[in-house]
Amino acid sequence: MTENGCEHRERVLTMDTMNPNIKRVEYAVRGPIVQRAVQIERELKMGVNKPFTEVIKANIGDCHAMGQKPITFFRQVLALCSYPDLLEDSKFPEDAKSRAHRILQACGGGSLGAYSTSQGIEMIRQDVARYIERRDGGIACDPDNIYLSTGASDAIVTMLKLLVSGEGMSRTGVMISIPQYPLYSAALAELGAVQISYYLDEDNCWSLDINELRRALQEAKKHCIPRALCIINPGNPTGQVQSRQCIEDVIRFAATENLFLMADEVYQDNVYAEGCKFHSFKKVLFEMGPEYSEKVELASFHSTSKCYMGECGFRGGYMEVVNLDPEVKVQLTKLVSVRLCPPVPGQALLDVVVNPPQPDEPSYDTFIKERSETLATLAEKANMTQEILNQVPGIKCNPVQGAMYTFPCIHLPPKAILEAKEKGQSPDMFYCMKLLEEKGICLVPGSGFGQRDGTYHFRMTILPPKEKLKIVLAKIKEFHQHFTDQYS
Amino acid sequence: MTENGCEHRERVLTMDTMNPNIKRVEYAVRGPIVQRAVQIERELKMGVNKPFTEVIKANIGDCHAMGQKPITFFRQVLALCSYPDLLEDSKFPEDAKSRAHRILQACGGGSLGAYSTSQGIEMIRQDVARYIERRDGGIACDPDNIYLSTGASDAIVTMLKLLVSGEGMSRTGVMISIPQYPLYSAALAELGAVQISYYLDEDNCWSLDINELRRALQEAKKHCIPRALCIINPGNPTGQVQSRQCIEDVIRFAATENLFLMADEVYQDNVYAEGCKFHSFKKVLFEMGPEYSEKVELASFHSTSKCYMGECGFRGGYMEVVNLDPEVKVQLTKLVSVRLCPPVPGQALLDVVVNPPQPDEPSYDTFIKERSETLATLAEKANMTQEILNQVPGIKCNPVQGAMYTFPCIHLPPKAILEAKEKGQSPDMFYCMKLLEEKGICLVPGSGFGQRDGTYHFRMTILPPKEKLKIVLAKIKEFHQHFTDQYS
Ligand SMILES: Cc1ncc(COP(=O)(O)O)c(C=O)c1O
Ligand SMILES: Cc1ncc(COP(=O)(O)O)c(C=O)c1O
Repeated sequence: MTENGCEHRERVLTMDTMNPNIKRVEYAVRGPIVQRAVQIERELKMGVNKPFTEVIKANIGDCHAMGQKPITFFRQVLALCSYPDLLEDSKFPEDAKSRAHRILQACGGGSLGAYSTSQGIEMIRQDVARYIERRDGGIACDPDNIYLSTGASDAIVTMLKLLVSGEGMSRTGVMISIPQYPLYSAALAELGAVQISYYLDEDNCWSLDINELRRALQEAKKHCIPRALCIINPGNPTGQVQSRQCIEDVIRFAATENLFLMADEVYQDNVYAEGCKFHSFKKVLFEMGPEYSEKVELASFHSTSKCYMGECGFRGGYMEVVNLDPEVKVQLTKLVSVRLCPPVPGQALLDVVVNPPQPDEPSYDTFIKERSETLATLAEKANMTQEILNQVPGIKCNPVQGAMYTFPCIHLPPKAILEAKEKGQSPDMFYCMKLLEEKGICLVPGSGFGQRDGTYHFRMTILPPKEKLKIVLAKIKEFHQHFTDQYS
Repeated sequence: MTENGCEHRERVLTMDTMNPNIKRVEYAVRGPIVQRAVQIERELKMGVNKPFTEVIKANIGDCHAMGQKPITFFRQVLALCSYPDLLEDSKFPEDAKSRAHRILQACGGGSLGAYSTSQGIEMIRQDVARYIERRDGGIACDPDNIYLSTGASDAIVTMLKLLVSGEGMSRTGVMISIPQYPLYSAALAELGAVQISYYLDEDNCWSLDINELRRALQEAKKHCIPRALCIINPGNPTGQVQSRQCIEDVIRFAATENLFLMADEVYQDNVYAEGCKFHSFKKVLFEMGPEYSEKVELASFHSTSKCYMGECGFRGGYMEVVNLDPEVKVQLTKLVSVRLCPPVPGQALLDVVVNPPQPDEPSYDTFIKERSETLATLAEKANMTQEILNQVPGIKCNPVQGAMYTFPCIHLPPKAILEAKEKGQSPDMFYCMKLLEEKGICLVPGSGFGQRDGTYHFRMTILPPKEKLKIVLAKIKEFHQHFTDQYS
């Protein structure tokens, strides 16, 4: 080996040498369909002729991108925090100013530009704790158990990181629902943990069946050490809202089976169906008495990205940990300190989300109006989506009780399945790709979320504006009928 | 096993069961000294009597927290982007408005609240590419090689993640300087990779010695597979600025030894010493001709957290990859998509950092004035720090050529070392803890960054305002003399 040049140099980082866990990661929400959609948009811009004039994206829960308007008060506070000279400006309401002032006082040097403590600004964690207490009817919440995060994604991955250990047969297993939000499978793949799939019950509105949990767990015990159970409620991609009874059963199951509970509750304000109500795992756990509330380990997650605010770009979020081993908590705090801190503008936004205008404040009426309008529109769109899709022969759709998605079952003719397989595509990918090419509608195939073998689905958000959503639904209807004719 | 309660439940997540790699992570910059500093601040507030009235923190490169003012133009643009109603406001300069307008047009739904593409907003990546081209005297930069990130920390960890594989003797080894910025050791511990330490040459202004690289590499080859070489330039915690010659030598070494280069250049604008200049690895690589520029794999990192802007809280940053295997690039893009996207306000901030006011624009003069004042003050403080510390018998300090830190060598009397060891503390931790308790000055012990055995250091930032910095330096001087007397 000489140091004169590098004629014989080979690439260091190739598919053969790279981290094999990364290869196993999949993330369909931004997969090939979306890449093709972006390409088609470029083609349209360049004047290429298509049977449609725009691509409508119903693939990702990205509210503002779909035209949802931000809450005025939140943005006023963020502008004031970003450029505090505006605190002198009479155009801003006093409550926005006092919120901004309070946030800035809690920032290093009075600036959003300072790093915060790694766990998140203490005052904001206190505000989060009070928000949780109000939400849960007074059950106590300790700000020391709150960790602010870079969106919920960050906190979820951090918690999984702590939980995962072992090799071979003693690898950690983590139970996740199928269909699931693919962050979970991706994180488990990256960490080299075992994914334990439990299937939601499509015939019962995607409810969670304890017998199915038990089945999945027993089977998994043969080849890994199950240690955690993840639940998404309200559900993504399935839109169900779990009953209080079901949550109790899940907690009892986790208690008996010694599982760490991870409750993804980022859609906690997105509940539309009559008779449905959001129940936090924390609240139910504490209502079950000290036998549970003092023992079962729980991490629950929330985010600024969903609900009525839909502020995805700010990457705000938090996790609450309950019954976490104090020594492990020290480790968690150390771990998050390596990345320094979550984005401070996202922390500021979270603060106003958990501490919005009060009835005696000038911004209250506007805030309530904006929030209720957004939630009412979402409820209306949830209903419309399910109604129209269920009119299509060959499409079967559960009620969209909550969250922002529907995950209808689609009947595909055997000839279509065959053609897909010949192309090496999953049949629902084949279907969605055709829908995109022919109608300009961008959805995500069910295979990206997981589904029972031999069934096919797609995930669609209810987020496009009402008039566009109608078009999307009409086009899907048209397409599905044509597709069915074509392949039968 | 029954499902009636959980009397026999044990904690799932304990020190025994948690991910053992996390246990190995260390992160001194926010370690026990800082925790004690926060405690002391609380005690002061509660009226506890101390030999000082405030804790001065010189432990972390957090500019705004230390009183550095944000650049007005940047904050105006951020306020406009957060609350676009302000675009109608005549108080904002036209150039700030046009930047904000342009950024919003590149955001989904015209809102900072939409997720961006995972690699970062395309227009901003184009602006970054043009910035790099200007910086590097016209050497081409492809926006497709730019990945926006959540601070530089995020991109550094992501790149390491891809690079790490193997078990036992075939584990990946990554070369890092000692002293180092502890993000590197922490990330390698978390990933289960082997840290290969090469020592910077303290006697030569912390320069990088190729013979030392060679020594470290040869030794490491016995027990791991070395695959990457990390360099921090300008250096943290050591404040050195590498010469062009040295960078060339490093590139040649990486070429011959088949190492992937990671260049941490977050302090690229922080160069103070006469005769020193920042040379980007990218530029030097390309000036060495196609034999190198077409072969050596390089990832370089930048951030909005340092330089003259010091906007740490926004968590903005980017990485440029050069000669990355196209298939690996697809994997990288997939990997970053799991976390959805970097914070959009941080992306917006990065955009104005790489595309600041131009000479014909209204905000130009103020921008230049603010920038030069900040950099001039930093240069002055760099000089002052080194001069005063070198006057203290028993403290030896290299010139602070760049970055924001000094890492002086401190002579500790054998009796102090003994007492520290009896307490189970590293001697420099013992020293820094005493300094904190007696003088209220918060520094980080050298052991948190690594140092040659038997030598002791501390890291101190040059960020406190000039008058406070003088106090800090005077107190250190006093303390060191007293400490030396006490223990000899
Ligand atoms: C169920 C669920 N969890 C977590 C997330 C992550 O959201 P964020 O990281 O933006 O908070 C999402 C985003 O769609 C989600 O649907
Ligand atoms: C050398 C070096 N690299 C990376 C970082 C990370 O900075 P950030 O994640 O805020 O961009 C720092 C922060 O101090 C640093 O000193």
